[in-house]
Amino acid sequence: MKTISPLAIVPFVSVDNMMRLVLSVGVERFLVELAAYIEEDFCRWPTFDKTPRIASHSVDGVIELMPTSDGALYGFKYVNGHPKNMREGKQTVTAFGVLADVGSGYPMLLSEMTLLTALRTGATSAMAARRLAPNSTSTMAIIGNGAQSEFQALAFRALLGIRDLRLYDIDPSATEKCRRNLASLGFAITVCRSGQEAVEGANVITTVTADKQYATILTDNMVGSGVHINAVGGDCPGKTELHRDILTRSSIFVEYAPQTRIEGEIQQLPADHPVTEFWEVLRGTAPGRTSPGEVTLFDSVGFAIEDFSALRYVRDKLAGTPFYQELDLLADPDEPRDLYGMLARAELAAT
Amino acid sequence: MKTISPLAIVPFVSVDNMMRLVLSVGVERFLVELAAYIEEDFCRWPTFDKTPRIASHSVDGVIELMPTSDGALYGFKYVNGHPKNMREGKQTVTAFGVLADVGSGYPMLLSEMTLLTALRTGATSAMAARRLAPNSTSTMAIIGNGAQSEFQALAFRALLGIRDLRLYDIDPSATEKCRRNLASLGFAITVCRSGQEAVEGANVITTVTADKQYATILTDNMVGSGVHINAVGGDCPGKTELHRDILTRSSIFVEYAPQTRIEGEIQQLPADHPVTEFWEVLRGTAPGRTSPGEVTLFDSVGFAIEDFSALRYVRDKLAGTPFYQELDLLADPDEPRDLYGMLARAELAAT
Repeated sequence: MKTISPLAIVPFVSVDNMMRLVLSVGVERFLVELAAYIEEDFCRWPTFDKTPRIASHSVDGVIELMPTSDGALYGFKYVNGHPKNMREGKQTVTAFGVLADVGSGYPMLLSEMTLLTALRTGATSAMAARRLAPNSTSTMAIIGNGAQSEFQALAFRALLGIRDLRLYDIDPSATEKCRRNLASLGFAITVCRSGQEAVEGANVITTVTADKQYATILTDNMVGSGVHINAVGGDCPGKTELHRDILTRSSIFVEYAPQTRIEGEIQQLPADHPVTEFWEVLRGTAPGRTSPGEVTLFDSVGFAIEDFSALRYVRDKLAGTPFYQELDLLADPDEPRDLYGMLARAELAAT
Repeated sequence: MKTISPLAIVPFVSVDNMMRLVLSVGVERFLVELAAYIEEDFCRWPTFDKTPRIASHSVDGVIELMPTSDGALYGFKYVNGHPKNMREGKQTVTAFGVLADVGSGYPMLLSEMTLLTALRTGATSAMAARRLAPNSTSTMAIIGNGAQSEFQALAFRALLGIRDLRLYDIDPSATEKCRRNLASLGFAITVCRSGQEAVEGANVITTVTADKQYATILTDNMVGSGVHINAVGGDCPGKTELHRDILTRSSIFVEYAPQTRIEGEIQQLPADHPVTEFWEVLRGTAPGRTSPGEVTLFDSVGFAIEDFSALRYVRDKLAGTPFYQELDLLADPDEPRDLYGMLARAELAAT
């Protein structure tokens, strides 16, 4: 109907193109570079507009919008969480996001973020563990072997060199799926029959279960001194994974305290229980791990800045690649005030 | 790389396809049908999750997310407002939106909304005026002849039969653009040299200017008894069009009071100044116009439910048409917990 102007075009990264991009970079290199972008943005934390995510809860799940801005770029993610989806052959979590130019308000990138969220979640966990886990960490327990588990494993190997994994899931077929995917990548894997067995000898314990309920994946006796707990699965009101007694003897690190108080493990604690926002560890304004025997806990719920970093990274990596399509998303009349005229001319052109 | 599953696909309506859809329906019929969808949703107002829009303000403009849900469908719009864009050949307002299934959290429709917002804004104004304007309304003044003006004119003709227009803009070239577009459509148009001249003999006054500032497009003496004011342009903090004295002698109708108190003309009034949410007029639980001499004011800022209605309407109209593309937006692994496996198989398929 009309020639589409460059001003009207927004690059779009489909799931298929995201896979191509990730594979062309290499998954582990992608995770390392992405973690560097996240760390860079965490280091300029005060620059960002921060708001807890905007959630729309329903019986079966939640739909959320997660916006943030650094004053030059604006990003947001749409993400759902529907644990029942898995039983219907759908993803528990799907997501897409947009990066936009604050100066003009024009979107600059639309991207799938189901895969990208899985990658940024693993990258964020490993970025935090690199500062919080004990020295000479070699073995990680992964409790919950669903869609996120392999990305955690790959990120911890890429960033911390962890190769020994102890896997447990209440569903043995999930563990078998995770084992199969990771075994061919050179991990040393122990399949465990309980959470208790999984944590034996592990310096890092990752909990990444999906049920939307108060669960007790880890009890207090399962957590030995010096361990780093990477708690990923408890991420909305009413959904936790750790027994309260673990929390009260851990040094707790969070992304953005106002959001984590609502959504994280610390929803079990009084609102004034001391926690450290992780960016302060990166900036050196708060201590990370202070002794070998300390139990550190990264109570991760996922924050908008991580998605912003991921979109920013993808935008930078896309340049010069064929891994995007051009979407005619924005109206661009010849004269900006003549939106109606654009429609009228389209009609003329069609007749 | 892989065959794309139907579960992964989201229909996308580009600007070009939105124009095709609108033209295939006919602009005025589109406005009438769209107004009916908006009215239907206003009539079930208490059903909706309502929240003021989430705005990210910057020096040059604002980027907003406007979500809402009726419990079965969820919708949100991304929209910017950057008055300076016009000087750079860009749109002041661009927008896109998503409709999603609350049950699964899966997006069902991605659509351009720059054009659609222009249409829904006109439809909403005319829907309200149909209940609030005096009987035998024949003449409308339109002050501000930018991108929204023609859509206002078309909506008021389609819903109220108004054919006589009096146009004024501080920029005569905007008025000439508006006149040219509308003259060929059978309107009787008077080009005016001032706002004062434009309002002479008009039963409806539409103000739809774009500057982001406290302006006084209408002073008190310009508003005669019995007039309906359709105030569209004042729609964010610090941006108003009417002198305060007009507000204090008008019966004021708004979309969603908590948002309009922040963004509308009534930001000039105390927070307890009485206003009526328009849905109550539609439901018969609050009066609309009560006398011929009353000055009625629809202080419209645009609310998420109108965009929700517009997305719902577009989704219904799309069925059976070719006016959309299929976007590979959602990851759909063969086994939902095997997101990593999807990536691994893509790699195998590529080698």
